[in-house]
Amino acid sequence: MGTSVRSVQPSRPGPAQTCKVALVGFGTVGSAVARLLLARAHEHPFQLTHICNRNVQRKKADWVPGTVRWTDDIDEILASDANIVVELVGGLQPAYDWVRRALESGKSVVTANKQLIAHHGSELLDLARASQQHLAFGACVAGGVPVLSGLYDGLAGDRLFKVRGILNGTCNYILTRIEQLGASFDEALKEAQQAGFAEADPTDDVDGPDARAKLVVLARVGLNADVKPQQVLCRSIRDLVTVDFEYAHDLGCTVRQISRAELRDGQFFAAVEPALVPQGSPLASVSGGQNMVMSTGEFGGETVFSGHGAGGNPTAVAVVSDLLQLLRYRSPGAQAPDRPDARPYEVSGDFETPHYLRFVVKDSPGIISSLAGILSKYQINIDAVFQRPGHDKAALPFVITLEACKTSRVETAIAEMRQFAFLAQAPLRMPILR
Amino acid sequence: MGTSVRSVQPSRPGPAQTCKVALVGFGTVGSAVARLLLARAHEHPFQLTHICNRNVQRKKADWVPGTVRWTDDIDEILASDANIVVELVGGLQPAYDWVRRALESGKSVVTANKQLIAHHGSELLDLARASQQHLAFGACVAGGVPVLSGLYDGLAGDRLFKVRGILNGTCNYILTRIEQLGASFDEALKEAQQAGFAEADPTDDVDGPDARAKLVVLARVGLNADVKPQQVLCRSIRDLVTVDFEYAHDLGCTVRQISRAELRDGQFFAAVEPALVPQGSPLASVSGGQNMVMSTGEFGGETVFSGHGAGGNPTAVAVVSDLLQLLRYRSPGAQAPDRPDARPYEVSGDFETPHYLRFVVKDSPGIISSLAGILSKYQINIDAVFQRPGHDKAALPFVITLEACKTSRVETAIAEMRQFAFLAQAPLRMPILR
Repeated sequence: MGTSVRSVQPSRPGPAQTCKVALVGFGTVGSAVARLLLARAHEHPFQLTHICNRNVQRKKADWVPGTVRWTDDIDEILASDANIVVELVGGLQPAYDWVRRALESGKSVVTANKQLIAHHGSELLDLARASQQHLAFGACVAGGVPVLSGLYDGLAGDRLFKVRGILNGTCNYILTRIEQLGASFDEALKEAQQAGFAEADPTDDVDGPDARAKLVVLARVGLNADVKPQQVLCRSIRDLVTVDFEYAHDLGCTVRQISRAELRDGQFFAAVEPALVPQGSPLASVSGGQNMVMSTGEFGGETVFSGHGAGGNPTAVAVVSDLLQLLRYRSPGAQAPDRPDARPYEVSGDFETPHYLRFVVKDSPGIISSLAGILSKYQINIDAVFQRPGHDKAALPFVITLEACKTSRVETAIAEMRQFAFLAQAPLRMPILR
Repeated sequence: MGTSVRSVQPSRPGPAQTCKVALVGFGTVGSAVARLLLARAHEHPFQLTHICNRNVQRKKADWVPGTVRWTDDIDEILASDANIVVELVGGLQPAYDWVRRALESGKSVVTANKQLIAHHGSELLDLARASQQHLAFGACVAGGVPVLSGLYDGLAGDRLFKVRGILNGTCNYILTRIEQLGASFDEALKEAQQAGFAEADPTDDVDGPDARAKLVVLARVGLNADVKPQQVLCRSIRDLVTVDFEYAHDLGCTVRQISRAELRDGQFFAAVEPALVPQGSPLASVSGGQNMVMSTGEFGGETVFSGHGAGGNPTAVAVVSDLLQLLRYRSPGAQAPDRPDARPYEVSGDFETPHYLRFVVKDSPGIISSLAGILSKYQINIDAVFQRPGHDKAALPFVITLEACKTSRVETAIAEMRQFAFLAQAPLRMPILR
């Protein structure tokens, strides 16, 4: 560092020094970004110069100044004098090509595209560096909650080894509705779709890929780990039923879709799945479409970030915050929000954890004994057995909780249990977080 | 901005580029900072060169390398080649002189000194700018919780208008003990002192000045407001008794020391005082010595930050995060974490809010009527009256809740109530947060 800390006087960017911004993608988030930039125009030096979208004619909005150029041609953006491209089209293609080309043509990029960063983060960050540009992606995780900058800047001094979170608002909305109303998954999903919280095809949300992409980005920024989404185990919330919440409550817990990653003894563990969380945990208090991230560091312990994880305005705040940070810290000495030494890992889903096993059986004598026999064979200790009264004997749900052991051992035991004719459904396994 | 976004390739600071750090103050936080810097020495370019403390001989620790120079002479630090001074002595003097002189002698400063920044923030930031140095103070508020960087960087894109928080762990510890054990304030304070959570003289914590300094720093960073601590109303938690928690529970609330600041119609409101918070609010879930900050923005809504607000290690994480951020973003274009346009405000404590009034009376007929008469005179609407059974008629506690109105009106009404001979104690007023 030497004398370079004696830097020259920081310049104060003012309206005179304008920075030209092209917006690519003018959906909910894109229009919120435009509104936010325009609403605060006197407070920052950004000038919105272009809006690019398919069939752009039908998108034109009268509140956008006439000086903004509307186009459906990405080449026009790339050939323009815009300094920064804000990519909000989502998905891998054509976003990947566009972001690459923007960086190559000497533009910095701000993106809210979690899949893009989850799949191609390292490559695009390298390209940004080689192109002497910045790539900022603070809006990828938890929308308006400033968790990526919190982990990267605010907790830089710690050595983080664990991140856990509720990263998908749709799942959280559905699960809280099942819990509150005793609704079935299908009913809660339908309600979420009607309320605009879920897509017509909810796969990406309820089966985990959306949360998984966010977890991979979190792991890059918080844990310095460069892993691919397809390495991370995802399990759906589709198999949850009301009785799981009843048993969870008996255990002092609730059920949430939890995304977690952990570094332990040089190994990297990660999974996205429904899990039991204690009622006293901050994770249990997240309701509706909110998001939460808890990080754990060797020195500072647990830190919690929560707020609005989705929606046009919160996500737009994250995008504009990235723009401002890029401007504040743009300079020869500044680095983009990527730890330079993010390193690749194998990913294991084999957490050592207590488990909840829910069975639905045709009642007959000897069931517990048969199941316990298999658990014992794999040296898995039973913690407790719960059976709520009032259920149909032909489809009787009950729960066995297990002491902490490797998930793989429980999986093997469950596979062997499938032979039993008394099972009316495949057993449901969930970790119990502590 | 023009072409400057096309910056040259960011340099990667490595061990070769060392940055010399002098530690001033070697108490709990100072030694934790030294340990953290030494534990992660291979991961960052900081070299601990000096440790300065009074009676330094008795402070010397064998785990500190022999290359570190121990001194009790600040002039030696100021004359040294250290690039950054980390000020951890606390209090206004001599810290103020030392920080001034460090900046003037061409050193950047990282400090955890909330009183210093609360009282002299603008002046010292101006001096840092004029000296072409940085002044970082992320550890001043909520210790290890990265709330200042979260507000300044992560939520820069929003227009924040409200911050509320639990900023003093000692008060929170005492209040949760009164709540859990039915202890008196004095008993809970004694227990907190024995557990190391409270000082022998607890004034700074329980009467509000500690939280007030943090609130002033939060307001600077989050709300862009330059106000002085002495402008902000502080009310003690000393007058709270167990029955206040019982009534609070009846109202679906609990009691916490809340620090809050709000910009509304160009006016700035702030106070530090005990308040009722709904059980469903994140603020109610903060237990023991934890800290929490909730910010509210025009665009992104509510964001919550929480974690360990004090203690050596969490505070050291914040200090080292500041060091790293200073290094990452040190450069001609980078600014210290201060919004350049923080502006001065008059401060009003006259929030418009619902109220909780707790009376202790010698029971006699006509009490409610007398009190209601005064409230009515000042056009204050009663929401409800609560009286729990089983109390002594000579010192009967009961509660009147009021609909939202200006605090000043309630104060005036209370002043007038003091005439009543049936009052066994002065009435206790608390706002009810929503």
